[in-house]
Amino acid sequence: MGFDVVIHNGTLVTVDRHMRVIENGWIGIEADVIRAVESGRPGTPPPGAGLTIDAAGGIVMPGLVNTHTHLPMSLFRGLADDLPLEEWLDDHIFPAEARFIRPDTVHWGTLLSCAELLLSGTTCCCGGYFHEDAVARAVAETGMRAVLAQGVIDFPAPGVPDPAQNIVHARVYAHKWKGGNPLITPSIFCHSPYTCSDDTLKAAKAEAEASGLLYQVHVAETRFERDQSLKERGMTPVARLDRLGLIDRRTLMAHCVWVDDADIDIIARRNGAVSHCPESNMKLASGSAPVAGMLKAGIRVSLGTDGCASNNNLDLFGEMDTAAKLHKLTTGNPTTLGAGSALSMATIDGARAIGLADRIGSLEIGKQADVIILEARAPHLTPLYHPESHIVYAACGADVRHVLVAGRQVVKNRRMLTLNVPEIMDRVNAIAREIRSNQ
Amino acid sequence: MGFDVVIHNGTLVTVDRHMRVIENGWIGIEADVIRAVESGRPGTPPPGAGLTIDAAGGIVMPGLVNTHTHLPMSLFRGLADDLPLEEWLDDHIFPAEARFIRPDTVHWGTLLSCAELLLSGTTCCCGGYFHEDAVARAVAETGMRAVLAQGVIDFPAPGVPDPAQNIVHARVYAHKWKGGNPLITPSIFCHSPYTCSDDTLKAAKAEAEASGLLYQVHVAETRFERDQSLKERGMTPVARLDRLGLIDRRTLMAHCVWVDDADIDIIARRNGAVSHCPESNMKLASGSAPVAGMLKAGIRVSLGTDGCASNNNLDLFGEMDTAAKLHKLTTGNPTTLGAGSALSMATIDGARAIGLADRIGSLEIGKQADVIILEARAPHLTPLYHPESHIVYAACGADVRHVLVAGRQVVKNRRMLTLNVPEIMDRVNAIAREIRSNQ
Ligand SMILES: [Zn+2]
Ligand SMILES: [Zn+2]
Repeated sequence: MGFDVVIHNGTLVTVDRHMRVIENGWIGIEADVIRAVESGRPGTPPPGAGLTIDAAGGIVMPGLVNTHTHLPMSLFRGLADDLPLEEWLDDHIFPAEARFIRPDTVHWGTLLSCAELLLSGTTCCCGGYFHEDAVARAVAETGMRAVLAQGVIDFPAPGVPDPAQNIVHARVYAHKWKGGNPLITPSIFCHSPYTCSDDTLKAAKAEAEASGLLYQVHVAETRFERDQSLKERGMTPVARLDRLGLIDRRTLMAHCVWVDDADIDIIARRNGAVSHCPESNMKLASGSAPVAGMLKAGIRVSLGTDGCASNNNLDLFGEMDTAAKLHKLTTGNPTTLGAGSALSMATIDGARAIGLADRIGSLEIGKQADVIILEARAPHLTPLYHPESHIVYAACGADVRHVLVAGRQVVKNRRMLTLNVPEIMDRVNAIAREIRSNQ
Repeated sequence: MGFDVVIHNGTLVTVDRHMRVIENGWIGIEADVIRAVESGRPGTPPPGAGLTIDAAGGIVMPGLVNTHTHLPMSLFRGLADDLPLEEWLDDHIFPAEARFIRPDTVHWGTLLSCAELLLSGTTCCCGGYFHEDAVARAVAETGMRAVLAQGVIDFPAPGVPDPAQNIVHARVYAHKWKGGNPLITPSIFCHSPYTCSDDTLKAAKAEAEASGLLYQVHVAETRFERDQSLKERGMTPVARLDRLGLIDRRTLMAHCVWVDDADIDIIARRNGAVSHCPESNMKLASGSAPVAGMLKAGIRVSLGTDGCASNNNLDLFGEMDTAAKLHKLTTGNPTTLGAGSALSMATIDGARAIGLADRIGSLEIGKQADVIILEARAPHLTPLYHPESHIVYAACGADVRHVLVAGRQVVKNRRMLTLNVPEIMDRVNAIAREIRSNQ
C-alpha cells in the first residue's frame, strides 16, 4: 500500500523551481507529507492507498497562500462601499469594530472566512487582527494552515483598551501559540508607521524577534500616509522603518503602494517581503503598487486579499487575475507579470514571504501536502491549452473541487468536511442583523 | 392561475429607473413577458403558476447584457497570453483563424460560449465575427438572446476571401436574419477605422441603416491606432468616423480607450454608444477607457468581455467588479463607478447601448422575462447588507443558479437545459487538439 492518499488522473502544476507541468500525473502522500510526484503510465493504475482521489482530468496544484487578510472582517463584507477612505473608516468600519468585535463575533467571522478561503482553494493565510487568540482557536477548528498575528496599535483597540498594554497582549498571545499547533504559527502585526510610535514599532519587532516570529506591518498604503511621513518626519514610511532597523527577512510589509525606487532598493537590500493587495488597493483608490519594479529588484512579492470589508471576497484566483492584468496596464506592457509569475506569487512566493517556503507553496517531495484540485470539465475552462493560463485568467475559486491541508481532506466535492457551514452562516447573519440595526 | 412562471422568495434587484430593491418579492411571467413585480406578504403564498421557482432567499435580477464579444473565439481561449499585441495576433490568433475558422468550428465554439454565458448569468450578448450565419444558427439552438453581426474588413477573412464582397456578405446575412427569430437581431460589424477604408466604413453603415440595424465598430483600442490616425489622417479615429457621418444612436463603438475630451464630446452629441471592455484592455495593455468622463457626458456606456482569447472568460460579473475598481484607481476616487453604476452598465445600459432598452435590461412590467437568480447561501455572499454590492464586488458567474430568457428556463440548478454541454466540450476539445498540433 505505502501511501495514505494518492491523487491521480490530473495535470500536475507543481510550481517547483522548473515550473514543471506533468500531464496525467499522480502524487502520493504519507501522513502530512508529499512522498511522490510522478507521471502516470497510460493503462497503469495508480498505486494503492488508504484514500484514492480521482482528479478527473482536472488541475492538481499547491494550495494558494493569501499573505494579507483580517479574518474576522468578513462580518463587515459589503457593509459600506464606494466611499472616501476616511468616511468609510470613521463612519462605518471603526464604529462597527468598536461595538461588535468581541471574542464571540471574532470566532464566527473567522470560521466564515476560513470556509470561504478553503472552498476557494486557499490552504494557508497570513494576517492579523484583535482578539487574535479567539481567531487562532477558530482557525484551529477548520484544519487550515495560518500565520496569525495579534495586532498592535497606539490606540484603544478591541480587547486592548489600554494601548500601553499592546505589546504585552501580543507577547502573551505569541507565547501561548508558539509551537502548540503544527498548522498555526503566531506572529505580531504592528498596524502601521502612521498609527504607531517609533517605540511601539521597535518593541513589537523585538518581541517578534525574541521568538523568531514574522513581523507584519501595513506600509505606504495611501498617498496621504506617504506625504504625511515626508512632511512630518522628512522620510518615507519605508525609510523610517529602515532607520529603526525593522526591515529584514522576517518582515512582511502589506501594500507598499506609495514606494519609490529608493524604498524598493531598501526593501530589496534588507530582504523584506511584500504582500500586494491589488483589489483592495483599487477599490479604495489607494493606487497601484510598483510590483514590476519590486520583482525586478528581487523582492519576495506575494498576494493578499486584505480584509473582506474592502474587496469584498477572499478569492485569491481573482487576485491573481487582477494582479496580472493591472501590472500590464500600469506598465503598458502585455508581457508584464505573465500567468506563471502571478501563479508563483499566489503559491511559492507567498510561502517565501511568510517564511514557510521549506514546507509549502509547491508540489514537491518532502513538502507538506497542501493540495487543491480544480475542475476541468466546465465551459469556461474549455479548451485547455496551458494550465497556468487557465488558473490565472479563466478559473475562479468556485472551480476548486477538493482541498487537502497537511494531507487531510478538508473540502470534498466543494463541501467543507471540517465545518458546519450552515450554522456558521446563520450565526454570522445574526451578528449582521445586530450590526445593521445599529447603522 | 394566471401566470406561466412565478419566481418568489427572493430579493428583487430591479435595476428600474428608481433602482428599486424589493426584499421578499416575487415576479409573475406570462409567456415571454413580465406581468407582475411585487412585494410578497409574509405568510402569504405566491400566486399559482404553471412553473413556480423558489429563489431560496437569493437575488432575482435582470439577465446581464454583454455588449462586445466574438463568440467563436472561445476556441482560442488561453492559446497564447502575455505577448505583445502584434506577436499575439500575427503569430497566434490570425494564423489560427485563417486555418481553423470554418462553419463547423464556428458552430461548436459558439455553442461553448453560449453555454458559458448563460451559466454565468448573461442572457443577451452582442458582437460579431465571420461565418456569422453559422454563429446565428448555433445561438438559435441555445435559447439565448443576441445581437449578431457579420464582420466587414478590407482583408481576406474566413468565409469572405475577396474583401470586395464584404458588404454583400453582410447584406445577405442581415436580410436572412432580419425578423426571422424573436431572440436574434442581425447587425453589421465594421472591424475598425484602421482596417477599413472610408468607403467600406460608409457602405457598411448604409447597409445597416437600410434595415435599421445596429452598426458596430472597434474604435481607438490602442495608442498605436490613435497615433497612426493622427499621423496619417490628421484626426482621431472618433473624429474620422464622425466626419464620415457614422456615429449616431445606432452606432456601438467597442473599446474607446484612446479618446480625448473632444472625442467624448462628439460621441455624446451624436448619441453614440460605447462598449467598455476593461479586462481585455488591461490584459492586452491597451489602456483604460475614460469611463468616468464618458458617463459624465451622458454617453451610454455598457460592458463587454471581448472575445475569450483576450480575457480569458466571459463572466460579466468579473467585468463589473473590474470596471468598478479600475475607474476608482484611474480617477484616484473611491466614489467613482459605485456598485449601482456598474450594475446598470451590465444590464439596462447594455440594453440601451444595443437598442433593446424597451425590451430588456430591468425587471419591469411589460419587459421580456430575461431573469437570473443568484445563490445567497454561500460563505462568500454572507452576510448580505446591500445586494448591489454583492452582485458587483463579491459574486461571480458560478453563483448563478437559474436563468430564464424570454420566459423560458434555460439553466436550472446550474445546469443547461437547452444544450448537451458534454458533447459541446468534447467537440471543442477535438478542434483544440487540431489547433494545438499545428502551433
Ligand atoms: Zn490590511
Ligand atoms: Zn473585439
